[in-house]
Amino acid sequence: MAKHDELGTTFDTVMHTPASRRSFLKWSGLAAGVAATAGTLVACGETAVVAPPVATLPPTAAPAGAAMDHGTGGGHGVAAPVSAEVTPTGAGLSKADEMDAMHEAGVKAFPAKTEGLGMQPLEPRIENGVKVFDLTCEKIMWEVEPGKKVEAWTYNQQLPGPEIRVTEGDKVRINVTNKLEESTAIHFHGLIIPNAMDGVPFITQPPIKPGQTYTYEFTVKNPGSHMYHSHHNATRQVSMGLLGPFIIEPKDRSKDPAYDKDYTLILNDTSQGLTLNGKGFPATAPLTAKLGQKIRIRYMNEGMMIHPMHLHGMPQLVFSKDGWNLPQPYMADTINVAPGERWDVIVDCTEPGVWAFHCHILSHAESEHGMFGMVTVLIVD
Amino acid sequence: MAKHDELGTTFDTVMHTPASRRSFLKWSGLAAGVAATAGTLVACGETAVVAPPVATLPPTAAPAGAAMDHGTGGGHGVAAPVSAEVTPTGAGLSKADEMDAMHEAGVKAFPAKTEGLGMQPLEPRIENGVKVFDLTCEKIMWEVEPGKKVEAWTYNQQLPGPEIRVTEGDKVRINVTNKLEESTAIHFHGLIIPNAMDGVPFITQPPIKPGQTYTYEFTVKNPGSHMYHSHHNATRQVSMGLLGPFIIEPKDRSKDPAYDKDYTLILNDTSQGLTLNGKGFPATAPLTAKLGQKIRIRYMNEGMMIHPMHLHGMPQLVFSKDGWNLPQPYMADTINVAPGERWDVIVDCTEPGVWAFHCHILSHAESEHGMFGMVTVLIVD
Amino acid sequence: MAKHDELGTTFDTVMHTPASRRSFLKWSGLAAGVAATAGTLVACGETAVVAPPVATLPPTAAPAGAAMDHGTGGGHGVAAPVSAEVTPTGAGLSKADEMDAMHEAGVKAFPAKTEGLGMQPLEPRIENGVKVFDLTCEKIMWEVEPGKKVEAWTYNQQLPGPEIRVTEGDKVRINVTNKLEESTAIHFHGLIIPNAMDGVPFITQPPIKPGQTYTYEFTVKNPGSHMYHSHHNATRQVSMGLLGPFIIEPKDRSKDPAYDKDYTLILNDTSQGLTLNGKGFPATAPLTAKLGQKIRIRYMNEGMMIHPMHLHGMPQLVFSKDGWNLPQPYMADTINVAPGERWDVIVDCTEPGVWAFHCHILSHAESEHGMFGMVTVLIVD
Repeated sequence: MAKHDELGTTFDTVMHTPASRRSFLKWSGLAAGVAATAGTLVACGETAVVAPPVATLPPTAAPAGAAMDHGTGGGHGVAAPVSAEVTPTGAGLSKADEMDAMHEAGVKAFPAKTEGLGMQPLEPRIENGVKVFDLTCEKIMWEVEPGKKVEAWTYNQQLPGPEIRVTEGDKVRINVTNKLEESTAIHFHGLIIPNAMDGVPFITQPPIKPGQTYTYEFTVKNPGSHMYHSHHNATRQVSMGLLGPFIIEPKDRSKDPAYDKDYTLILNDTSQGLTLNGKGFPATAPLTAKLGQKIRIRYMNEGMMIHPMHLHGMPQLVFSKDGWNLPQPYMADTINVAPGERWDVIVDCTEPGVWAFHCHILSHAESEHGMFGMVTVLIVD
Repeated sequence: MAKHDELGTTFDTVMHTPASRRSFLKWSGLAAGVAATAGTLVACGETAVVAPPVATLPPTAAPAGAAMDHGTGGGHGVAAPVSAEVTPTGAGLSKADEMDAMHEAGVKAFPAKTEGLGMQPLEPRIENGVKVFDLTCEKIMWEVEPGKKVEAWTYNQQLPGPEIRVTEGDKVRINVTNKLEESTAIHFHGLIIPNAMDGVPFITQPPIKPGQTYTYEFTVKNPGSHMYHSHHNATRQVSMGLLGPFIIEPKDRSKDPAYDKDYTLILNDTSQGLTLNGKGFPATAPLTAKLGQKIRIRYMNEGMMIHPMHLHGMPQLVFSKDGWNLPQPYMADTINVAPGERWDVIVDCTEPGVWAFHCHILSHAESEHGMFGMVTVLIVD
Repeated sequence: MAKHDELGTTFDTVMHTPASRRSFLKWSGLAAGVAATAGTLVACGETAVVAPPVATLPPTAAPAGAAMDHGTGGGHGVAAPVSAEVTPTGAGLSKADEMDAMHEAGVKAFPAKTEGLGMQPLEPRIENGVKVFDLTCEKIMWEVEPGKKVEAWTYNQQLPGPEIRVTEGDKVRINVTNKLEESTAIHFHGLIIPNAMDGVPFITQPPIKPGQTYTYEFTVKNPGSHMYHSHHNATRQVSMGLLGPFIIEPKDRSKDPAYDKDYTLILNDTSQGLTLNGKGFPATAPLTAKLGQKIRIRYMNEGMMIHPMHLHGMPQLVFSKDGWNLPQPYMADTINVAPGERWDVIVDCTEPGVWAFHCHILSHAESEHGMFGMVTVLIVD
């Protein structure tokens, strides 16, 4: 689902492509069957590693009766691969091995296939110079992770709703058809538009009743990473899924830092659980880049909680807040995104490998059964 | 309650004035009886809107037995007003209409009258060049929203406590009389003052026992948006209402950006529920400005949770943190304010209309029964 | 536990030294027996305080039967010391006095001795130019505050784990021995290192099984305030205590602002409760400085919640985020630190006294029984 614009930038809606799956397997070592014999992977840094002799240490308190078939070799660690073989099934598994097997299964399943893909670019039709988008609100079942289907209220059967991407100065028309059982309205979060287009029932418009279609029309003025979402019974409607990205490219692209790929990450913590772009790990999609490429990440929070997003391995240049470029970009590795906020960053992909990328409220990312929720990876090839 | 200082700036403690009520009604269309016939309002943007033909879409799953008296006309949306009339009472209301009626009632009630007004400017008396303020801690019943009265512990029977506003370099004396049943003390949050004036019982002073009066005296040094609040049994005392704004004007006003009006918004989420300046929607007060005016908003968080404050329609220039002007102001539309923080912004009121203004943790702003809590509007006339 | 480096900077792991105890007592007045006769301390600001005559105010609603032995003198407050003596035990105590006695007891106990001290500098041994650190994961009982012992999973029996402090460009080797009952792995949070050293089981390495030792080796590149912690079953393992500071001094120290002392404050809110450096008030340790000194504070959040850290009395110059110096430092008094974030500040200790220093989510700092949890003080002598 990558396309190129006239400037050569790739718009890549984070997706499950066979290529990213292959990259992930190559880097994570799972393809080589390494994980099946846990402990045999030789970690290597930038220099050859010669581990000092290390005494074998027995587990302090092994569960009685558990077969401890690890740690019986003469040495451990980097240069002293463990000889023990882990048999991943059967009664012989220790409690630690059982936990590890669950953790491994999650990683092996990644990126897991699920039904439905959110945030697909919505192509407008052009009518008298106006870009026209049709959005339909409707209830569907949404697969958040393999086998976990929940009721969702969506725009065009996607969660997040389809990506609207236009250019500063464009005239846009958005026809919203309400197939829900309750009224709705759309607020264009972050856009400077006439008051009547602001989407707040009883303040700027009547609610859009079930069965009705309502039309918004305006010229987009302020570029950046914005959002659209329900502003009627919003605690419930946005939680159920009535939300999507509204991206406005600047007319003058030179005002933004240069980048090769463009990602959007919508953070959420409501009816579907803890998600990135509507999916929970292992059904989240990896971000990918070639070594030396620069990627832009547009964080958007549509949930109720903060999510400090931590990318391993490489810092992030924070250059835009709510669509407004900062006068002084700064570097960080953990970007705290509050509900309603958008933060845009550039990652210079200088470090090859598979880099974990997750919310650093750890309970949003890992349980005793392994990683889940707000976890993905950046693969630099 | 607006007054002018020598520089012509209006100090406007957000209030319910007949004028702001009239502005709100005019803009929201409620005055014109529009909402009573929901669906008939023709939304108009900056250009004339011609809606494309839209097929009539039946509700996907109308509740059995509900009278669906909408969507029966030949066309819908902007250019095709719905013919259905909404009867706001009676058994004929569908579930959607019932919900909409509750939402509408909340907006129609805004700005709702309640007893008690917080944050009223406290005029000092001058004694030998010292500005003397008297604060009395006492328990009252506080009307948070129409009909909802809760016990509150207040300064001078106001919640937030009265606004103390002085100028850099002023000598101030604050006499605190404790009419509560437990001891207390006041901390001047953000002020650089001698340690003995810092208000922390057993560290910088004895507690102020019930019945006692205690005097703080100091010269104010650092200008900006500060706060005063209890620092004894503070989780309870501040939650119950012992808090207020302490604003220090700079001697040299040219160091601040220019503005025409000056608002303070104290965010809270404790004993009174979710409030702005001690009131919940629809009893919150609108901010008002004339087209082209610049307003300053001083956010202060006296609660336990973050509140990302989102103003519709216009961006906010963030120029001060905790009373310290930023070397590089930046733009944003959602300001994440953590407990104890103050953020000051300028809004250039370039867009006319009634703009929703609320915490973007949506559950702090809207329920199935309509908007509540941390919601107000900015009216630009 | 202070040491000096070649540049004369003091590395001071926040500790309970007899000297800091003496300073605290001197400033807080507790040493002089003041608190035992609460109400007699004469507060004094920068100028002589002459309190105006103040009418004696009876308590509004004294609990029936409570002996009100305060407020019976002729005058109160600053220049009119209360004559009442507080007897801190016995049936004669009013409810207010009982509460005050508990609050006082907490302050008097500070800084309270507890078993165990986290974050002690870990001296490496040098092997062929490589700085080698040994970390052992093991379960212990940890005393969070006097008498409150909880199970903790630690590095080298410390919580936070020992301080690793190296210099940009250093080659380091870290041998991790797992004496827990479950597997683990270490992620070096914030460091730019080869992917194989990143510490994410099944993505960059096999888990370190119970009894195994695993070796990480890399060159440290990016200076600043970083962390190390478990990245396996991390919600539980980090919560239980597998975390520590990883500080990288820049080769060129002139890139950082100048400072005299260097403090690290690790914020946490998980299995041990609300803690600063693994201890809750009154077992937290004071920060100390001589008048005119500048101190650096490295905030690190290893918990699940934000903690807006408020220092009384003096502002903080925020100059670094996640180890990356900001292009434009700014001033603030309340630093909102989200999980996974690090913020570095400089405090210019211009104001003498004992300054409260705490998380401003008040329920993390004070209960009806007095201060607890995320509270300490900065003593400027």
